[in-house]
Amino acid sequence: MLKSSFNTIGLIIRQHSSEHGEAIEQICHSISKHGELLIHHLDQDIVPSCYPPSPIRQIGEQADLVVSVGGDGTLLTAARYMVDYEIPLVGINLGRLGFLADVTMAELDQHIASIFNGNYSVEKRFLLDGEILLANAEQQTHRALNDIILHSHESISMIEFEVFSDDQLINKQRADGLIVATPTGSTAYALSGGGPILHPGLDTLALVPICPHTLSNRPIVLPSEQCIEIRLSKPGMEGRLSFDGQTRGILNFEDKIKITRHQREITLLHPADYDYFHILRAKLNWSNQP
Amino acid sequence: MLKSSFNTIGLIIRQHSSEHGEAIEQICHSISKHGELLIHHLDQDIVPSCYPPSPIRQIGEQADLVVSVGGDGTLLTAARYMVDYEIPLVGINLGRLGFLADVTMAELDQHIASIFNGNYSVEKRFLLDGEILLANAEQQTHRALNDIILHSHESISMIEFEVFSDDQLINKQRADGLIVATPTGSTAYALSGGGPILHPGLDTLALVPICPHTLSNRPIVLPSEQCIEIRLSKPGMEGRLSFDGQTRGILNFEDKIKITRHQREITLLHPADYDYFHILRAKLNWSNQP
Amino acid sequence: MLKSSFNTIGLIIRQHSSEHGEAIEQICHSISKHGELLIHHLDQDIVPSCYPPSPIRQIGEQADLVVSVGGDGTLLTAARYMVDYEIPLVGINLGRLGFLADVTMAELDQHIASIFNGNYSVEKRFLLDGEILLANAEQQTHRALNDIILHSHESISMIEFEVFSDDQLINKQRADGLIVATPTGSTAYALSGGGPILHPGLDTLALVPICPHTLSNRPIVLPSEQCIEIRLSKPGMEGRLSFDGQTRGILNFEDKIKITRHQREITLLHPADYDYFHILRAKLNWSNQP
Amino acid sequence: MLKSSFNTIGLIIRQHSSEHGEAIEQICHSISKHGELLIHHLDQDIVPSCYPPSPIRQIGEQADLVVSVGGDGTLLTAARYMVDYEIPLVGINLGRLGFLADVTMAELDQHIASIFNGNYSVEKRFLLDGEILLANAEQQTHRALNDIILHSHESISMIEFEVFSDDQLINKQRADGLIVATPTGSTAYALSGGGPILHPGLDTLALVPICPHTLSNRPIVLPSEQCIEIRLSKPGMEGRLSFDGQTRGILNFEDKIKITRHQREITLLHPADYDYFHILRAKLNWSNQP
Repeated sequence: MLKSSFNTIGLIIRQHSSEHGEAIEQICHSISKHGELLIHHLDQDIVPSCYPPSPIRQIGEQADLVVSVGGDGTLLTAARYMVDYEIPLVGINLGRLGFLADVTMAELDQHIASIFNGNYSVEKRFLLDGEILLANAEQQTHRALNDIILHSHESISMIEFEVFSDDQLINKQRADGLIVATPTGSTAYALSGGGPILHPGLDTLALVPICPHTLSNRPIVLPSEQCIEIRLSKPGMEGRLSFDGQTRGILNFEDKIKITRHQREITLLHPADYDYFHILRAKLNWSNQP
Repeated sequence: MLKSSFNTIGLIIRQHSSEHGEAIEQICHSISKHGELLIHHLDQDIVPSCYPPSPIRQIGEQADLVVSVGGDGTLLTAARYMVDYEIPLVGINLGRLGFLADVTMAELDQHIASIFNGNYSVEKRFLLDGEILLANAEQQTHRALNDIILHSHESISMIEFEVFSDDQLINKQRADGLIVATPTGSTAYALSGGGPILHPGLDTLALVPICPHTLSNRPIVLPSEQCIEIRLSKPGMEGRLSFDGQTRGILNFEDKIKITRHQREITLLHPADYDYFHILRAKLNWSNQP
Repeated sequence: MLKSSFNTIGLIIRQHSSEHGEAIEQICHSISKHGELLIHHLDQDIVPSCYPPSPIRQIGEQADLVVSVGGDGTLLTAARYMVDYEIPLVGINLGRLGFLADVTMAELDQHIASIFNGNYSVEKRFLLDGEILLANAEQQTHRALNDIILHSHESISMIEFEVFSDDQLINKQRADGLIVATPTGSTAYALSGGGPILHPGLDTLALVPICPHTLSNRPIVLPSEQCIEIRLSKPGMEGRLSFDGQTRGILNFEDKIKITRHQREITLLHPADYDYFHILRAKLNWSNQP
Repeated sequence: MLKSSFNTIGLIIRQHSSEHGEAIEQICHSISKHGELLIHHLDQDIVPSCYPPSPIRQIGEQADLVVSVGGDGTLLTAARYMVDYEIPLVGINLGRLGFLADVTMAELDQHIASIFNGNYSVEKRFLLDGEILLANAEQQTHRALNDIILHSHESISMIEFEVFSDDQLINKQRADGLIVATPTGSTAYALSGGGPILHPGLDTLALVPICPHTLSNRPIVLPSEQCIEIRLSKPGMEGRLSFDGQTRGILNFEDKIKITRHQREITLLHPADYDYFHILRAKLNWSNQP
C-alpha cells in the first residue's frame, strides 16, 4: 500500500557534472514546498548548503516518497536500496528522458505538483537476487533491477557455462557471457546483446547470450519465478559477475550463481501521461523511419 | 478439470504420405486397448477399414481424450477444434520429434500405456482469437495456437501498418509483415523472423516484424491479456491474414484486426519425462556446438 | 569511356503522383539549357507538353547522358536499360534523398550545372544476369542492379533449395527465400533480411536468407565472379523469381537459376560532394543515437 | 612464387595438452621422411627429444615450408611470423577440423604425402597492420590475420568512438567495441558479434560492432585497401586493442589506431580436396537442420 500522503521526501542524488548544481537546487526548492526533505548524495559531499546530508538508511526509515535525481542509473541504485522499505520512487532526469527517470527538468514543476496531488501512474517492477555460492562455501547475495551478467573476466574471451532452470538443464553455452535481464533491464544491456524488449508488466526474465560462439544461439524468455543457476563448465575459467553494471564477484569452476526473483517489488510513480511505448520509440528510435 | 479416465478416445489424423498407413494401424490398435475409438481423418477418406469415420463435432462431444496423429500441424488443427470442448490432447508424431506432437512411434506403446495409467505431465497452452473487422462492417473471427500473421499480399513487397495495444499506439512499421505469436508459436515462424523463444508457461505474446524496412526494429514481448490491433496505414495497401499458417482473410486500408487471448486454454498431455528444454535443444540444435 | 560532353540528354521519368508535374517541368527546363532532351515516361503518357515522347531505344542510341527522374526504383529501371549502351546515369529524386537518385529538388540547379561543367564524381556499379533454365529446356535471362530473389510462391511458406557456387555446394536451405544482392542492393531488401552493408566499390555478392527455418543460418559474402546456381530440392515446391523487386518467372523442381555478373557496368554520376557514408547515415539512421 | 620442392620444413608447435605428445612424435616422424626438420615450440621447452629447438627466425630464414601443429590459433601465430619470409604454411589440427588448420590426425600420412607430391590447393590470405598512434607520439605496429579489435577496457562497459575510412567519417558508435575482421577472421570472433561470413577469396574487411548501444547498427563490408582509423570520442574513455585475440595496447582519448592491409600475403596449402563450403557447414553447422 502506498502511503496516502508524502510528508517526508528522500532525495537520492547523483550529480554527474558540476553544471547540474543549479538544477539540483531547483529540484530541492520545488519539492520542499510539498514536505520535509532528506537528502543523500551518492557520489560526493556536495549537497545543497541548506540541507544536511542524511544517511540512506534514514531515508529508508523515514521517507514516504523517494525522488532519485540523476539518470536511470541513479534510480537503479535508489531502487536497490528502497525496495525493502517499500517506499515509492520517482525519477528526475538531469539529462534527456530516461526509461526509468522520466521526469525531465523541462516539466519539473508541473510533474512534481501532479505527483503530490495524487495525479500519477503507479507501476511495479521486480528485482533479482543473485546468490553467489563459492566452492569454499562462502556466499553473498546482491540484487539488481536491470540485470545480472556473467561475463568472461577478460574482455573478448570466451567462457563455457551451463544454465539451469529449477535444476533442469536449459543449455550449455560458449559465449563471452550471459545476461539475465528483468523486463526493466530488457531495454538496457540486454538489448545490445540482441535480446527482445519485454513489457514492464511481465513476470518474465530474458536470458541473452553475449557474443555466442555458435550460430544457433537465441535469447529465451522465462517465467520470473524460475530459479536460474549458472555454472562454469571448465576448470580454469573465470567469470565476472555484475549487478546492474557493477562488478560484485568472481565465479570460478565449481562456484555457482543462483538467480531468483526478489521477494518485494519496487513501486515507480510516473507522470500521469506516462506512455511506455512512447518512451520506447523516443529513446530507442524503435522502428522509426529516418 | 481433466476427466479421470479416458473411455472414449478421438483420433484426429493427417496422413502425410501413404507410407504411414501401417503406423496409423498400429496406433489405432495400441489405443483401442484402452477405450472406444472415434476417428476423424483431416485430409482424405482413408481411414483404417474397421473404423467408420466420425465427424469432428462428434469427437468433441463424446471423447474424453483426443490423440492427434501426424505432426505439429495436425495438433494445431486438433487444438483449434477441441479447445472449446475442454478435451485434453496428446500428439503422436509420425515423423521426427515435434514441439507439440511429442510421442514418437519408437516409444508409442510405452507412452500410450503411461498416459492411460495417469502417468503424464499436464500443460496448458493458450490460443489467440483474431477478429477481422472490415470497413464494410463485416466481421469474422478465427483462432490460432501458434500465430496470427499479417503479411503483404505479394511476397517481398512492403506494407505499412500501425500496431496498437489496448488502443495505445505501439509503433508504426514498414515491413513485409508482422507475426503475433503465442509462446507455442515462438518456436515456429516467429523464430525464423528473429523472435525470442518464449517458455510455454508464459502468458505473453511476441510481436515479431518480418523483414522490417528499418534497422531499428526489434521484437517486443507483451502480456497476453493486451488486445493487439493492427491497421494498414496507407490506402491501396493490402495484407493477407494467416492463422497458424493458413490464409483466412484479406486486410485493406480502413479494415482492422483485433487479436485477443482466447477465453479457454487447451490442455496438452505429455509423456511423464517431458523436458521442454531438451526438445528445444533437440529440435532447434539450440546453442549446440557442431 | 565517358563522352566528354553531354549534348543529348535522355530523361527517364516515373511520375509517382500528380503533384510532381511541376517538379518535372522544372527539371526539363533546367536540363534543356544544357542540351537537347529526349523524354521517356515509364508509367504513363503524361509528358510535358512541349516534348514528344521518345522510345527507350532511341534514348539508348542517341543520348550522351541519361537522367532518371523519380526515385531509386526509377534509376534501377533506367540502369537495366542503359547498361548495354554504356551511357552514364544521374538520378534526380522527386522525394527524399535516395541511395542512387541522390540529386534532390532542393539542389537541382546547382547540381545540374556542376554535372554539365564536368564537376561530378564517377562510380561504377555492376549488375547481375539471372538465367532461368526450365526443365523443359526453355530459358530466359533477366538482369538486376539490386538483387535477384527466390521466394516461396505463397508468402510465409517455406521452400527448400540448394545453392551452388561454380558447381560446388554452398548449402541447402529451408527458408522463405534467398536474396542474391549486389553491393547496390545490399542497402535495399537484403538489409531487411539481416544482410550486411556492402560498400559499392566491392566486387562481391551477398547471399541473404529470408526467414530461414534454422537458427544457424547467416549471410555469406562471395566474389561477384562466382556463378551462383539455385535449385529447389523437393518436388512440388514452387518459387517465384524477382529481379529488382519485379516478378519475372517461376521456379519449379528440376528448374534452376544461374546468376552471374553482367558483362558491363553502369556508370553513375554523383554530385561532386557525394559521400556514401553520409547517405548511409542519413537514409538508414545507421548507428545514430536517437 | 612457391619453392618447387620442400627440403627444409619448419614445425611450429603448440602443445595444448600433455596428451598430444604422441601425436606430435607421429607428425615429426611422418614429415621427417620428406625433408629436414626445424622445430619451434611456442609454449614450452617440450620438444621431441631427437630434435633440438630452433628459433623462429631460423625457421623463417631456412625453411621451404612451415607446418603449424596445434589448432587455428597456432596457425595464426605461425602466419604472423612467416608472412614476411613468404614461406607457405600447412596447418595440422591436433583436435577437430579447423578453419585454417585443416589437416587432421586421421588423414595425416595421406595429406602429408600429397602435399610433398605437389598435390595441394594453394590459397592466399591477407593480414592487417594496426598502427597504434599515441597522443604522446609513440607508435607501434602489430599485425593480425583474423582481426583487430577495439574493446572497452572493462568488460560490459561502453565506449564511444569514431570510425574513418581514408579520412572520411564512416560513423560514430557507442558499443562495447568494434571488430575489424579479414575474411579469414569473419568466421572467428566477428561471427559471434553478428558479422557476415566473408569468402576467403575476397579483398574485403568487415566492421562488426560488439554489443552496439543503438538498435540501428549493422555490420559493413569495405574494400581491404581502405585505411580504417578509429578514435575514442570522449575524454576519459579507455579501449583495449587486441590482435588475433591478444591484447597489444591501450587506446586513450586523442590516440588513434590506423588499420591497413599488410603488404604481403600468406600462402596456405590445403589438402587437394579442400572444400571451403564443406568446412563452413561442418565447423559452424551452417544452415544445417538438426
